[in-house]
Amino acid sequence: MADPTRISLNTATLQQWSLRECVEGCARYGISAIGPWRNKVHELGLDTATQIINDHGLQVSALCRGGMFTSLDDAGQRQAFDENRAAIDEAAALGAACLVLVVGGIPEGSKNIAAARAQVVDGIGELLDYARSARVPLAIEPLHPMYAADRACINTLSQANDVCDQLGEGVGVAIDVYHVWWDPELEKEIARARNRILGFHVSDWLLATQDLLLDRGMMGDGVIDIPQIQNWVEKAGYRGPIEVEIFSAQNWWKRDGNEVLETILSRFANYV
Amino acid sequence: MADPTRISLNTATLQQWSLRECVEGCARYGISAIGPWRNKVHELGLDTATQIINDHGLQVSALCRGGMFTSLDDAGQRQAFDENRAAIDEAAALGAACLVLVVGGIPEGSKNIAAARAQVVDGIGELLDYARSARVPLAIEPLHPMYAADRACINTLSQANDVCDQLGEGVGVAIDVYHVWWDPELEKEIARARNRILGFHVSDWLLATQDLLLDRGMMGDGVIDIPQIQNWVEKAGYRGPIEVEIFSAQNWWKRDGNEVLETILSRFANYV
Repeated sequence: MADPTRISLNTATLQQWSLRECVEGCARYGISAIGPWRNKVHELGLDTATQIINDHGLQVSALCRGGMFTSLDDAGQRQAFDENRAAIDEAAALGAACLVLVVGGIPEGSKNIAAARAQVVDGIGELLDYARSARVPLAIEPLHPMYAADRACINTLSQANDVCDQLGEGVGVAIDVYHVWWDPELEKEIARARNRILGFHVSDWLLATQDLLLDRGMMGDGVIDIPQIQNWVEKAGYRGPIEVEIFSAQNWWKRDGNEVLETILSRFANYV
Repeated sequence: MADPTRISLNTATLQQWSLRECVEGCARYGISAIGPWRNKVHELGLDTATQIINDHGLQVSALCRGGMFTSLDDAGQRQAFDENRAAIDEAAALGAACLVLVVGGIPEGSKNIAAARAQVVDGIGELLDYARSARVPLAIEPLHPMYAADRACINTLSQANDVCDQLGEGVGVAIDVYHVWWDPELEKEIARARNRILGFHVSDWLLATQDLLLDRGMMGDGVIDIPQIQNWVEKAGYRGPIEVEIFSAQNWWKRDGNEVLETILSRFANYV
């Protein structure tokens, strides 16, 4: 059973709450860390966001998100570079343990996923000096293969590990059970990710998933053996926060935020 | 460019047509092969189905489908075994080049995907003598990881190749671009599948996919580099039919079947 004090609340789980409400909710329920999305930070302003997170004594497990490196033209690539530097600055200001990278899919008009993957490696490589200087580790999050076209062309932990091997210090991985649970190579690749696991995210895969993006389940409501994967992650040396990230437009986003947090706490006791 | 005489029509592409209409449509447009689903065969009756397919001179590229080996109880396993033997009998009667296997997901109440995968290997193994006697090769179709829970826990060609290595003669693979296009190991695993490729299926992955099951695209409307994958498949020795299998509840299933067939023919000239 996971220690509930290790919970981090990814703010995407409570789309119905502002960052301020998320921070106050965490404090109210004894949740010690938060993983904010940049849009919610921007709504509040970076300084205010930093201050209220600090005032409530929360760790920042990660900032979501940088990435989106894939583009067919120079202007698009430059824009991604600038946007990623801004995200690194924000992560540093917030004291985030890492910046999560959703690396980007196949650029519009292309059918070349191999080229997109190469572009991702180049893009992270170009960003790396800046990230190292800012002391913000970059966490590559492999996304489920169903997002290969539109969101992220790194779709297995094996690929993410390969990129880390290639780029060296300053890059690691974020492992989200929703994205990787099906992978027959998962145990082996988690072991291979030793000392580079920067985040561990939980939710559940619902048997009757209704939507490709916005129908993630609460831990315990689906088919993922979360304790098994967590065990592998801990054997690989990870002891950081366990971040709850549930995109759920038709269910959890429609409920009262306090009910969602209470459910997370009770599910942690039984399913994480 | 693919030779249009190599097209096989998977009957799921024309949900709006009976098997008889599909057979007559193929004949009308010079399509030389068909891949029927069992439910459409049953609607017409096996004998009549066999006769009209033969009368129109069509090859049967495959019968869809056997499989569904995963079950937590003995009764479920026995039922799957019986159902698969019936499917083999039908495939033999139809002169199908193979029986496609959709192997089954995680059984209700379980979260153990490794156990489900082991059960699939056992299930195919138990069926193999019967299939060999009937001279019906079994084609394991790896399904996209988004179906790992509810339809098939074999989700990469690598896994399917492993099962073939383990079970030997009489088992091969069906490669559907929709399921495998994202896989970074695809080129390597297709080469490894040499002499065991029993089917090659095409459709397309739409960038803005709306549904996990029923929103496949027509070739050319999505992001899959079909000629690249076809080239790998042909380098691995496959020269059989190219089966068009498009589940499309909101688009192609709502159109006139003749329009769909004409579109397939024109897309073959440009995108396959």
